[in-house]
Amino acid sequence: MTRRSNCPISNVLDLVGDKWSLLILRDLLFFDKKSYSDLQNSDEKMASNILSNRLEKLELDGLISKRSNEKDKRKKIYTLTEKGVDMLPVLLDMIIWSAKYSPDTNIPMALVNRASQDRDGLLEELRSRVTFL
Amino acid sequence: MTRRSNCPISNVLDLVGDKWSLLILRDLLFFDKKSYSDLQNSDEKMASNILSNRLEKLELDGLISKRSNEKDKRKKIYTLTEKGVDMLPVLLDMIIWSAKYSPDTNIPMALVNRASQDRDGLLEELRSRVTFL
Repeated sequence: MTRRSNCPISNVLDLVGDKWSLLILRDLLFFDKKSYSDLQNSDEKMASNILSNRLEKLELDGLISKRSNEKDKRKKIYTLTEKGVDMLPVLLDMIIWSAKYSPDTNIPMALVNRASQDRDGLLEELRSRVTFL
Repeated sequence: MTRRSNCPISNVLDLVGDKWSLLILRDLLFFDKKSYSDLQNSDEKMASNILSNRLEKLELDGLISKRSNEKDKRKKIYTLTEKGVDMLPVLLDMIIWSAKYSPDTNIPMALVNRASQDRDGLLEELRSRVTFL
């Protein structure tokens, strides 16, 4: 992948600067999704070609890993890498932003309140719940 | 704008989920850029049609404001609204992520170190530097 510049923000946007990639990370992080069909089943109804493309890119960039389901080798299981889990603060801040400016979205208020009081503890706890490969 | 879902993360990506919008906020927040030509002058060399399109969308979504330059009415000055400034934590987290995973980018280390010790104080200070309309 070619970097557009040496800016650390532009660098992250080269990886996840689109409408879908962070939703895949969200589903793996918060909703315990694992399979392709789990991931296809979101409220945003991601088109199959977009989902395949983003999964491939996220794997190539080292944010997620793929392995075969032991019961059915044709099926793949997707999990986050540490590099992917470390996007968690970005997702949390997006939730907090929406809590302020789009309160009519599905805000997990317990999480937002906890974040304002003990952000580091919350992030640690969310991280510890993630299953790695 | 149509929301893809009621998810607070998807909601933010509806606004800034692309490779450019957050770079415009970055330039207004960190580099004190104000005019169209300032914004065109970034290392990422944003194409003029993309820049116009994103500025229009950011203004429509209430993240930035536009007014005429008092000395030359044809020229516009862009500034962040509070809603736009509140994307600052997201940008900060992206810098912190790159400090860990892409340390060869231009990491502002003083900022990253301060963030790990006094995130709220840092955000407050950065916010106070922004000039509003």
